[in-house]
Amino acid sequence: MSQPVEKGTLYVISAPSGAGKTSLVAEMLKADEQLGVSISHTTRPMRPGEQDGVNYHFVSRTTFEAMIARDEFLEHADVFGNYYGTSQVWVEQTLARGQDVILEIDWQGAAQVRRLMPDCVSIFVVPPSAEVLRHRLTSRGTDAPDVVERRLREASEECRHALEFDYLVVNDDFSVALHQLLAIVASQRLRMDRQEVRHAGLLSALMDDSPSR
Amino acid sequence: MSQPVEKGTLYVISAPSGAGKTSLVAEMLKADEQLGVSISHTTRPMRPGEQDGVNYHFVSRTTFEAMIARDEFLEHADVFGNYYGTSQVWVEQTLARGQDVILEIDWQGAAQVRRLMPDCVSIFVVPPSAEVLRHRLTSRGTDAPDVVERRLREASEECRHALEFDYLVVNDDFSVALHQLLAIVASQRLRMDRQEVRHAGLLSALMDDSPSR
Repeated sequence: MSQPVEKGTLYVISAPSGAGKTSLVAEMLKADEQLGVSISHTTRPMRPGEQDGVNYHFVSRTTFEAMIARDEFLEHADVFGNYYGTSQVWVEQTLARGQDVILEIDWQGAAQVRRLMPDCVSIFVVPPSAEVLRHRLTSRGTDAPDVVERRLREASEECRHALEFDYLVVNDDFSVALHQLLAIVASQRLRMDRQEVRHAGLLSALMDDSPSR
Repeated sequence: MSQPVEKGTLYVISAPSGAGKTSLVAEMLKADEQLGVSISHTTRPMRPGEQDGVNYHFVSRTTFEAMIARDEFLEHADVFGNYYGTSQVWVEQTLARGQDVILEIDWQGAAQVRRLMPDCVSIFVVPPSAEVLRHRLTSRGTDAPDVVERRLREASEECRHALEFDYLVVNDDFSVALHQLLAIVASQRLRMDRQEVRHAGLLSALMDDSPSR
């Protein structure tokens, strides 16, 4: 291609656990091949069935801390003793190729990303009611009461940062919520600052009123 | 309803003549009952088949000029000796009821509206090529060459203001263009500033981590 490649858009999607974010993002990726998801780096042990470079980039604490020291993360966090982070180089290279990138991160990561990449589009996903959320977080059955309580507190804490996001999607009906997420992505691609790159030749031809056109 | 009504969104849609804007807007209105189109005031004579209050509000020059003097227009223009204008009172009342309003106006009207209502969302529609535009504007057959030439010049002039708009939709495949316009409308309704009004109760319940909830 001889024309300049348009840059992809970075989407930050956050939600309290139990909102259905992961399933929604999985369906977004199936529906739209221009969308890709960022694969985080982590120091937590690989679980059965997981693959390095697919679910996560599994690295040692030493490696992770060296990456922090080199400022290589767009965002990173220490969650109960394990590091999780998003490589800024990977994200920027992917966007430069014209691919959109989705980051599934919490509100703190979202705040870090917004500071470093203010052009990102951030979306918060919520369940349809506090009762549904509570039910989803407490009905797994196998967890100790203190684990359940912590999960509920974390969900409320996450929701307290909803207003920092650009868009809100309520996951009541899954297919409606999916459709809404895809509409946000579609509309971002129609923004004039994107379209004027993609359709530069067309716009220039349409502006020309010389009789010879 | 006891909760505050969320305000509608004002859409300004412009295009060179021959882009298919009017047909697209007609289909948008069929597809989405929350969308309404503004009915302009005009001093031009009513044509056979037209109805006052449906196609236009047909008024005398004296009435129109009195409305201008009272600052009642969001935008107005004198087009070849006939006035056309959009009543600001009507638009604001309609938005206050929660209805979205589409204005089909030219780039000059769009610029006036943007100054008075900076929250409006503006969309520019273009045909897929300069050749298609030229063909559509010259193939009506019945018009004199100077009329055709004027129409071409006006179309180019209109397109020179495309970059002033928020979104660009290329009307190549009609149903794709319609889908894109509806995606813009859908995504606007998902913006946090809209959603935090619509879902104020839900957000407040989700933020509450008291065990009694």
